[in-house]
Amino acid sequence: MINLSGIYPPIVVPFTETGQIDAESFKFNLKKWMDQGLSGVIFPGSNSESPFLTQNEKIKLLKLSATYVKEAGKTLIAGTGMESTAETIKLTNTAAEIGADAALIIPPYFYKPEMKHNVLIEHYFRVADASKIPLLIYNVPVFSGIDFLPETVIKLSEHTNIIGMKDSSSNVIKTSMILAEKPKFLIFCGTVGSLLPFLSIGAVGGIMALANFAGKPLMELYTAFQKNDMILAKQLQNRLVSINTAVTSKYGIPGLKYAMNKSGYKGGFPRRPLLPLDQNGCNTIDDLLLLIR
Amino acid sequence: MINLSGIYPPIVVPFTETGQIDAESFKFNLKKWMDQGLSGVIFPGSNSESPFLTQNEKIKLLKLSATYVKEAGKTLIAGTGMESTAETIKLTNTAAEIGADAALIIPPYFYKPEMKHNVLIEHYFRVADASKIPLLIYNVPVFSGIDFLPETVIKLSEHTNIIGMKDSSSNVIKTSMILAEKPKFLIFCGTVGSLLPFLSIGAVGGIMALANFAGKPLMELYTAFQKNDMILAKQLQNRLVSINTAVTSKYGIPGLKYAMNKSGYKGGFPRRPLLPLDQNGCNTIDDLLLLIR
Amino acid sequence: MINLSGIYPPIVVPFTETGQIDAESFKFNLKKWMDQGLSGVIFPGSNSESPFLTQNEKIKLLKLSATYVKEAGKTLIAGTGMESTAETIKLTNTAAEIGADAALIIPPYFYKPEMKHNVLIEHYFRVADASKIPLLIYNVPVFSGIDFLPETVIKLSEHTNIIGMKDSSSNVIKTSMILAEKPKFLIFCGTVGSLLPFLSIGAVGGIMALANFAGKPLMELYTAFQKNDMILAKQLQNRLVSINTAVTSKYGIPGLKYAMNKSGYKGGFPRRPLLPLDQNGCNTIDDLLLLIR
Amino acid sequence: MINLSGIYPPIVVPFTETGQIDAESFKFNLKKWMDQGLSGVIFPGSNSESPFLTQNEKIKLLKLSATYVKEAGKTLIAGTGMESTAETIKLTNTAAEIGADAALIIPPYFYKPEMKHNVLIEHYFRVADASKIPLLIYNVPVFSGIDFLPETVIKLSEHTNIIGMKDSSSNVIKTSMILAEKPKFLIFCGTVGSLLPFLSIGAVGGIMALANFAGKPLMELYTAFQKNDMILAKQLQNRLVSINTAVTSKYGIPGLKYAMNKSGYKGGFPRRPLLPLDQNGCNTIDDLLLLIR
Repeated sequence: MINLSGIYPPIVVPFTETGQIDAESFKFNLKKWMDQGLSGVIFPGSNSESPFLTQNEKIKLLKLSATYVKEAGKTLIAGTGMESTAETIKLTNTAAEIGADAALIIPPYFYKPEMKHNVLIEHYFRVADASKIPLLIYNVPVFSGIDFLPETVIKLSEHTNIIGMKDSSSNVIKTSMILAEKPKFLIFCGTVGSLLPFLSIGAVGGIMALANFAGKPLMELYTAFQKNDMILAKQLQNRLVSINTAVTSKYGIPGLKYAMNKSGYKGGFPRRPLLPLDQNGCNTIDDLLLLIR
Repeated sequence: MINLSGIYPPIVVPFTETGQIDAESFKFNLKKWMDQGLSGVIFPGSNSESPFLTQNEKIKLLKLSATYVKEAGKTLIAGTGMESTAETIKLTNTAAEIGADAALIIPPYFYKPEMKHNVLIEHYFRVADASKIPLLIYNVPVFSGIDFLPETVIKLSEHTNIIGMKDSSSNVIKTSMILAEKPKFLIFCGTVGSLLPFLSIGAVGGIMALANFAGKPLMELYTAFQKNDMILAKQLQNRLVSINTAVTSKYGIPGLKYAMNKSGYKGGFPRRPLLPLDQNGCNTIDDLLLLIR
Repeated sequence: MINLSGIYPPIVVPFTETGQIDAESFKFNLKKWMDQGLSGVIFPGSNSESPFLTQNEKIKLLKLSATYVKEAGKTLIAGTGMESTAETIKLTNTAAEIGADAALIIPPYFYKPEMKHNVLIEHYFRVADASKIPLLIYNVPVFSGIDFLPETVIKLSEHTNIIGMKDSSSNVIKTSMILAEKPKFLIFCGTVGSLLPFLSIGAVGGIMALANFAGKPLMELYTAFQKNDMILAKQLQNRLVSINTAVTSKYGIPGLKYAMNKSGYKGGFPRRPLLPLDQNGCNTIDDLLLLIR
Repeated sequence: MINLSGIYPPIVVPFTETGQIDAESFKFNLKKWMDQGLSGVIFPGSNSESPFLTQNEKIKLLKLSATYVKEAGKTLIAGTGMESTAETIKLTNTAAEIGADAALIIPPYFYKPEMKHNVLIEHYFRVADASKIPLLIYNVPVFSGIDFLPETVIKLSEHTNIIGMKDSSSNVIKTSMILAEKPKFLIFCGTVGSLLPFLSIGAVGGIMALANFAGKPLMELYTAFQKNDMILAKQLQNRLVSINTAVTSKYGIPGLKYAMNKSGYKGGFPRRPLLPLDQNGCNTIDDLLLLIR
């Protein structure tokens, strides 16, 4: 089976102030990420403002990503979940053709109350049957409003083309329940807030916003855990949580882009309706960045 | 100001078993709706499976809707909210050109935690500035995960091109708070479950799934209220609530389409990932339909 | 069957600054409430700080309440729900002996997840079997964390000694579902925020914090509804909602006591851990009180 | 400072079928717990059905607990949080006199929305000032409906008599945030579901329902972690999660008592309103117990 272990950024798309894609900055960042010990990148993903991207924009940026990632011998995972089953299959196979190694599939989320166990099973199994690349489930209740039940994940994991899950819910209980039944299922922590706890119970890595600008301390933490240095791992984990909360739940993408701009990356502007970070937010993030230097 | 009072169905799109649009059934329904005393229709809307429609499909069906609605001298309201501000403006003005009288705008909902007061104000004001037709806000937390604060609605209502709101949250307290400040703001109840309570505190009508197949009892209830016949209104309201819960929160669009098929309309099949109603669901709805005959 | 229709305050207990019961102020208020057209009072209730009262204090104040209420020919409803079934029965019958006409029973709420349908049925049926006075269910999820399902209420309503419910959840849909099945079940609105909506679908009255100091406008609204004057009823409803939100969900008992102090009643101080209302809260309530004068 | 590290059961109270305290079974269990390598016991606690106990019953059982625990040279922690500040102080000092080494204080929880930061600070500081023994905060949102903010815990930790917290919320992010600021604050995991994750980020032990009958595998896990044997620790953690979910969130105290009865302890019956576990529940727990033998 494909080895996907490790740390990945779900990468951002830098825009100009008027909302145009800034391709040069996008390339600048790609080059830099390839140089941090990370295992690859996710695009499009939850931090790519992908709901604001047209299909053409997604494909163009996927091609760019593939070029840089492949050249560096790294892994490209494409976020290809759409609302309809048919569109999900189509985009997944387009990404496969462009060079994606795996696809990360958010569930259809508009009709939340109807996304019951059997509807999700049918949807993912259809996509898995048709997809040319292996799939990861994407559990991100904060955005999708859908929180997979352990039994749904366990059932999905029985399809040979569904090999893992990115879980952004920090639910360690669910993760243990799944891994107790399916110890080889590849679970990726979806937020730095629970990275070490997830690793301690068997997660194989993380796909995390913070990796957009903090690859170095994250690789240090990941390596400490692999070397069984639990004291260092704990210190790094607890040190990283506050800045992570700020650039994810508190300030979101505008906060993440600002932190990138202050850390040697080119985050650029968000696209509307998102607005650039306000002054208070900037000050808070400035302070928090000092803690991880 | 445009008079929009009354009862509207947010109309469904009938698909064939393999997920193709069944345009003949769509037209059949449109003709029939024009004949029920309803004030018009909403398309696309929360029951149109619009997240599963391509832009081309939306535009084609909008044109069809406009033809039938205009001929009947009724009102067409188009659901044109998209994730980005720019795409929302574009689709709204396309709908206006096709003949929509007003637009119903769901907020961008993927990045829920970032949809704070000022982000929503900036988004809606930009759209309202650019739109050729008046706007209604669409508050539907069950799908969007976003529940407008009263102060956000009150602020939005100060823009002359934002004239009202469809609220599917059944929150009578919020409605009273808004109407206490802005008694002329046009509030439409978004679900039969709270129609009479909403009317009692000043709502001007309803945009409700049930109107897809139960226009007659809904018009009876609406008329009873207008004639101040509170006893009849109460009886009708309480009688309609159970079937409404079944075809909305319990069984969703598959339930609604089944109920339409049993009531002289052509609901057709849902598009995947949605699955046709199972046998238990069919039996439940059969029983509930008897109560409103 | 006992006629309980009408408007009731769930009365407050005035404390001195150091947390002693101020019996004189309690009597002053009782006398005044008897003079407002209200149907009676609830004690102890959600606004009595009853979790902070010892059993002896409850009994002493129940006796005081009974004296004043009986003299005035009004109704006394006692809040007698405790965590264990045995203690609930004991307190209910003590209240009956003191003179309570009915009991309002909050469900046991510490072990929320275990309060499933059959546990609630067994508990309430046991209490109803043993109680010398009829029972009202008390649904108040904001405090108890338990929200009765319609099917649980419908089942409970089949016991001849369970005659109604106070519902503070403003859930008009559930109320319609219950009244569709059991039109004679006595539903009391538990908050002014949804009083007119509840009356419009068949509630027989209200048990509401605001009645502690705003009996007059509440009786005006209630009477307007009974006379079918829906326009006046709507105006009063929408005018009362903001002050109600302030003295219930926003500022709670400290806010309610402050509003009483400013309205000719003697609210006194709350008992610790509750703290007196801060200056900002006082200013907000001062402004809101102007709106209902 | 007092050393409290380790694993503790929040002990159950066995009742007879008619709800009487079965003191012999209570003593039987106490003797057995003293023999499992555990650090002591918590009484009364979330699994003691303490809301169903009178004050006299609590004191009688506290004395019994103290006798056995002290004899064994172990630690007794008393759950002494009440709704009012005054009653909390009183019960805490009664427990201290009986021999409790520390007190575990649940916040007042009836008036949930009013339990804001400053109210909690004032309440806990008053109790801490008056208490003869050190305090642990008890964060258990599933029962109390109150979830402490990190900033509230950090502020409380500055009082020298508030030395730690039992957290049953499995929120690893909050734990990291607190320990990043206050690395010496004593955090106890409140549920086996997140024990290893909590230990990995700096918790010093666990106070967990499962320790009522599974002291042995829990001590094995705790010891494995202390020896840095992360592979064994992970295996034990993932193996214990399903049985833990069953005897806590799924079946609650009736499930826990049944599991004790099947594991050589004397769980007895629950007190009403709680009902004995039904047959389905018994079968599920029988199966799950096999996994941890």
